[in-house]
Amino acid sequence: MEKIVEQTLLYDFYGELLTDHQKRIYEDVVFNDLSLSEAAADAGISRQGVHDLIKRCTRTLGEYEEKLHLIERFTQTRRLADEIERLVRDYREKPEEALLTRIEQICEEMKE
Amino acid sequence: MEKIVEQTLLYDFYGELLTDHQKRIYEDVVFNDLSLSEAAADAGISRQGVHDLIKRCTRTLGEYEEKLHLIERFTQTRRLADEIERLVRDYREKPEEALLTRIEQICEEMKE
Repeated sequence: MEKIVEQTLLYDFYGELLTDHQKRIYEDVVFNDLSLSEAAADAGISRQGVHDLIKRCTRTLGEYEEKLHLIERFTQTRRLADEIERLVRDYREKPEEALLTRIEQICEEMKE
Repeated sequence: MEKIVEQTLLYDFYGELLTDHQKRIYEDVVFNDLSLSEAAADAGISRQGVHDLIKRCTRTLGEYEEKLHLIERFTQTRRLADEIERLVRDYREKPEEALLTRIEQICEEMKE
């Protein structure tokens, strides 16, 4: 996965577990595109401090995903919802009972 | 929610964020039904220590849910999957296009 996409997803799902200080700097650099020096001046810490904080936060967020699989679960739910939509469209073209049964199976899978 | 159900759900979703020591004692008391004294003897800590640990772990797990809403999301997905299954059954009884459209709407909702 591209690094910025991965960082955005991780932050979307687990950002609430960071401190306000960490969130502010992480957002400044990763989303608001501030340079490390700008973010450092903003937060009143060193450029190296900002660099280390971003690296540490990304690792922390990644560790939450390794343990909780929230992104993985959400991605799987999206995938299954897409599949149901595809089956509904197929059914309109050619109404076969097997397609409805398949939708029910996917629903069961979603509930596991 | 009944306390044991809530503790089980919280542990299922966030248990991985506890330490091995915490997990062992929490499982002993909450799932294996050991008394506080038994769990205390087992872990080599005081009865009061076990009591405090269980209380603290439950609070910690609850705080994760307040921040990440993993249980809430999962419950919502289950609810929507149930609704799709109901719509499929209704459709078999009375095949109306509106039911298929509703299934597609629910899929979109799931992907949000």
